[in-house]
Amino acid sequence: MAGLIGGAKRLRPPIVTLLTDFGLKDPYVAEMKAVILSICPEAWIVDVSHMVKKFDVRMGAFILAQAAPYFPAGTVHVAVVDPGVGTERRPIIVEAKRSFYVGPDNGVLMLSAKREGILHIYEIKNRKYMLQKISRTFHGRDVFSPAAAHLALGVPPSLFGPEVSDPVVPEFAEARVSGRNVLGEVVHVDDFGNLVTNISLENLLEVGIEEGGSLRVEIGGRKLDLRLCTAYGEAAPGEILTLIGGTGFLEVSVNMGNASQTLGCGVGEPVRITHPGKAGL
Amino acid sequence: MAGLIGGAKRLRPPIVTLLTDFGLKDPYVAEMKAVILSICPEAWIVDVSHMVKKFDVRMGAFILAQAAPYFPAGTVHVAVVDPGVGTERRPIIVEAKRSFYVGPDNGVLMLSAKREGILHIYEIKNRKYMLQKISRTFHGRDVFSPAAAHLALGVPPSLFGPEVSDPVVPEFAEARVSGRNVLGEVVHVDDFGNLVTNISLENLLEVGIEEGGSLRVEIGGRKLDLRLCTAYGEAAPGEILTLIGGTGFLEVSVNMGNASQTLGCGVGEPVRITHPGKAGL
Amino acid sequence: MAGLIGGAKRLRPPIVTLLTDFGLKDPYVAEMKAVILSICPEAWIVDVSHMVKKFDVRMGAFILAQAAPYFPAGTVHVAVVDPGVGTERRPIIVEAKRSFYVGPDNGVLMLSAKREGILHIYEIKNRKYMLQKISRTFHGRDVFSPAAAHLALGVPPSLFGPEVSDPVVPEFAEARVSGRNVLGEVVHVDDFGNLVTNISLENLLEVGIEEGGSLRVEIGGRKLDLRLCTAYGEAAPGEILTLIGGTGFLEVSVNMGNASQTLGCGVGEPVRITHPGKAGL
Repeated sequence: MAGLIGGAKRLRPPIVTLLTDFGLKDPYVAEMKAVILSICPEAWIVDVSHMVKKFDVRMGAFILAQAAPYFPAGTVHVAVVDPGVGTERRPIIVEAKRSFYVGPDNGVLMLSAKREGILHIYEIKNRKYMLQKISRTFHGRDVFSPAAAHLALGVPPSLFGPEVSDPVVPEFAEARVSGRNVLGEVVHVDDFGNLVTNISLENLLEVGIEEGGSLRVEIGGRKLDLRLCTAYGEAAPGEILTLIGGTGFLEVSVNMGNASQTLGCGVGEPVRITHPGKAGL
Repeated sequence: MAGLIGGAKRLRPPIVTLLTDFGLKDPYVAEMKAVILSICPEAWIVDVSHMVKKFDVRMGAFILAQAAPYFPAGTVHVAVVDPGVGTERRPIIVEAKRSFYVGPDNGVLMLSAKREGILHIYEIKNRKYMLQKISRTFHGRDVFSPAAAHLALGVPPSLFGPEVSDPVVPEFAEARVSGRNVLGEVVHVDDFGNLVTNISLENLLEVGIEEGGSLRVEIGGRKLDLRLCTAYGEAAPGEILTLIGGTGFLEVSVNMGNASQTLGCGVGEPVRITHPGKAGL
Repeated sequence: MAGLIGGAKRLRPPIVTLLTDFGLKDPYVAEMKAVILSICPEAWIVDVSHMVKKFDVRMGAFILAQAAPYFPAGTVHVAVVDPGVGTERRPIIVEAKRSFYVGPDNGVLMLSAKREGILHIYEIKNRKYMLQKISRTFHGRDVFSPAAAHLALGVPPSLFGPEVSDPVVPEFAEARVSGRNVLGEVVHVDDFGNLVTNISLENLLEVGIEEGGSLRVEIGGRKLDLRLCTAYGEAAPGEILTLIGGTGFLEVSVNMGNASQTLGCGVGEPVRITHPGKAGL
């Protein structure tokens, strides 16, 4: 049914979000917005990030998956981290339970879409919903933006092309509990230098670590006995701490400082958490 | 009265501005916008800056105070430079004569609000106007954005919580005239490298310095005899000059160059201005 | 006729774009948006770029000319790269076939406006369409933003001031074909490090080079025999390639890399293209 999304009403005003690795210097993001507004003049366009590391599909997927749950149902998310643009990689629309996702079939959409629940995936093939002239280097402007704008207008996703049954799904390491240890890794370093891990509070509770308590953190060759704080300000300025951040996952942080610089750690760094009373056992 | 602001009519469309120290890489700003649009779908969201130096409450306060007077009456300004998030510092709403201000009670709102004229200050306590789940590290998303969106919808600020009588007020050094000298300091270095001071044209007129005339500037260990220009282009490219900038305050600048780099000066640098004919007297 | 643009209907909602060299740290861009929304509350404001190199009128002109054609007819483009602000350089409005352009008369508007087709140029003199208080250092806020907002409201451009017959027109080097060579230069380095030239596919076809074929590129003291690809991903990661980019012009690129760094080339670098079978002839 045109205009209906998982049974929900069409979103008024329609929201289209943009995530790219384009940076902010060039006209590229503005060209995408221009195309969207030419097709769907009432669209509310919200930038998620254009500072994704170039070609870093996983970082794009992570940031999109963090932001998407806060948008209203019916939002159309466009994500263009697309090193394979113009090759045989498919342009797709993912119809998920709450939102639409538009972008390349390289995994950038799938972390968020999977968490939400995927209903259908369609390849974008219908020429009618693309710009007349399609460059082979800028599908963000010529294919994905027009598709997003037509979705925002209420065009049903099934009209864009055939269903896709074998999308590229990126593997994201999940933290796991092994005996008395939680084994995870740093999945994102934010602009504050906070080391965001893939370790949840549930993982920690499983080994007996609670908020307000303490824990041993092995990271970057160091063993640190730290508190699991509930606010950065519970540690002294410059002190290393851990907490469950706004992402819902364990962060290693420095109050008023930059943990990534202090510890010399980045994305992919293994992290082992142990209950302090049980460490070394 | 719901929807009335200092006697003014509700703003259509409602404008909500955002100022943070979050940077532009992460999903944090988009999460705030998503929350605001979920509650108040018609909000016009305008970014003031997300490049405030991390934890620099004074820089945030300065930038907000520069921008706020240009927005229409009824605008809701959200400012999140919030190193104390999750500690006992209060989340507040300031109802000023023209605008609402939403953010932490650490002074970031107060420079602008005081200049405008403060009517009431309320602590945000009413759980009804927050997200259901509140992280202790991201009140920008979970407390301040929902509050701003509800204000934009017309909820009266008095419904958010009890009045606050003892807000944190940052001290900003005011320039002062002492005999034949104006004594001030650099309060902001803008992206052009202009050294923006807290010295007004009134201060200069008091010691007999007029636009188009000349003045002696002591800054960074140097004594410079400069002109008080009315446009950067009145100086030769690369020449140091002073003028009353778009902020309304004295700037030390380099035409087509970067005064901060040329003079090696930053925020907090003392500045002494003397009438050139009276210098050394 | 008020509200009519080159015979087209008024744009609903009115779109105003902004391009500056202000960067994103300071309150300046927000002040412009505040002024526009105070005058034209329904304006849809789209950032084209605020990361133009300081004072680089040509870079501003290039970026604006890339983005403008994708916006709907009736869009008002504001461009403020304005080292001469406050001097005798004129503030102007260019009424072109599809769009309005507002900014300083230093050429920043003219590349885009000329491509579109210029109908009239007016000096902004009518005090009624400016802010009451006009600083001499920030016409972006005090002159250009109010002009753009009034245009967006439907005020005819002829009401702003007298016609201008001698605008400043920047010269942009055009590529030229000389015998078997195409001689051009790098006109932009984008955030990916792609070296965007002023050489079109038509120029290449003239010397017998086709997409999918090969070509010899002389740039930065090197002679490179490269393919004219149709997608970055046709080259191996790290390999140098050429293609007709999203700009419509020849780019020298590195797949998954940064050509500007690899080749040590920037804006202004001469580029000579030769048919590989005819090189050295």
